[in-house]
Amino acid sequence: MATKTPNGVNVEQLVGTINAVKATPELAKFKFRSSSRWDGGAKERTTIKSFYGAGQEDTTRTETFTLEGDEPAVLLGTNAAPNAVEAVLHALSSCMTVSFIYPAAAQGINVKSLEYTMEGDLDLHGFLHLSDKVRPGFQNIRVKAKVTADAPKEKIQELLRYAASTSPVMDTLRNPVPVTVELQE
Amino acid sequence: MATKTPNGVNVEQLVGTINAVKATPELAKFKFRSSSRWDGGAKERTTIKSFYGAGQEDTTRTETFTLEGDEPAVLLGTNAAPNAVEAVLHALSSCMTVSFIYPAAAQGINVKSLEYTMEGDLDLHGFLHLSDKVRPGFQNIRVKAKVTADAPKEKIQELLRYAASTSPVMDTLRNPVPVTVELQE
Repeated sequence: MATKTPNGVNVEQLVGTINAVKATPELAKFKFRSSSRWDGGAKERTTIKSFYGAGQEDTTRTETFTLEGDEPAVLLGTNAAPNAVEAVLHALSSCMTVSFIYPAAAQGINVKSLEYTMEGDLDLHGFLHLSDKVRPGFQNIRVKAKVTADAPKEKIQELLRYAASTSPVMDTLRNPVPVTVELQE
Repeated sequence: MATKTPNGVNVEQLVGTINAVKATPELAKFKFRSSSRWDGGAKERTTIKSFYGAGQEDTTRTETFTLEGDEPAVLLGTNAAPNAVEAVLHALSSCMTVSFIYPAAAQGINVKSLEYTMEGDLDLHGFLHLSDKVRPGFQNIRVKAKVTADAPKEKIQELLRYAASTSPVMDTLRNPVPVTVELQE
């Protein structure tokens, strides 16, 4: 029998992963990593390759990914790359995509297209340290989803709610994450 | 007199921005945006260009930036791009870079190098909906900074603490952000 891959997702592997985690909870523990270096002005370059998960260091990635950051001119940058908070919107888009597509595949729902547009409000008073009352980060984020799929609207709504409740980045944004910062010698 | 640009930052423009915001608080309001589309399996592509800030829609960006997401093989992807939570680490790196470099420049401190390595823990039980007790997102993030600059260690420590307290992405992660999700017709 051919492997079933609705939406390009190997559902047998997905079910296998779920069963493996049920049998051996330790397999669910992942560590993701990044290294970055400043590149002058507002510019930086992040490289991403290694991670730990499913009980071992990953050995399948051959490519090191590079992501760049900069600021627009009005924020003293050179327009060379998206800025940090825009990268957050990308991360949420990427996560909400996977968190929608995988469960849809598991339920045998063929998705034809999935698009997100996002917008977030930010007030510079926090970043510029001009007010203690204004938070530096996003005050809120509005996500709009556009979906075409072989399913009624209520089913799509349900999948979207499910995605929002299981998406790692959505949870990372909606709920506090402890972050420690240490200066190395 | 030549423009002062320690660390590649136009300090006159920075001071001008601070004064402009003090005089006209509305200028501090920004709206950042993204558009994404699913690209099969775990893959998606985010495009970023327009934003609103300093009282108007930006007109200086000529390039549309593209960021891609995918999952590693163990998470049913094709290793084509970093995944969503790794993109979060990039966003934090980019933000902590700007949030360190700008105040250093304003204080006339020449930074020679700034590197961050980050690692975050994530347990798949949340994403796979196998436990209500395990959050889907990062359980914590560890940031290590390596800095060389014309300043004593205490000053660098102080700048790092300041960066962590004013960084928009750090605040976005450490504190809850309301996110609304709407299905469009």
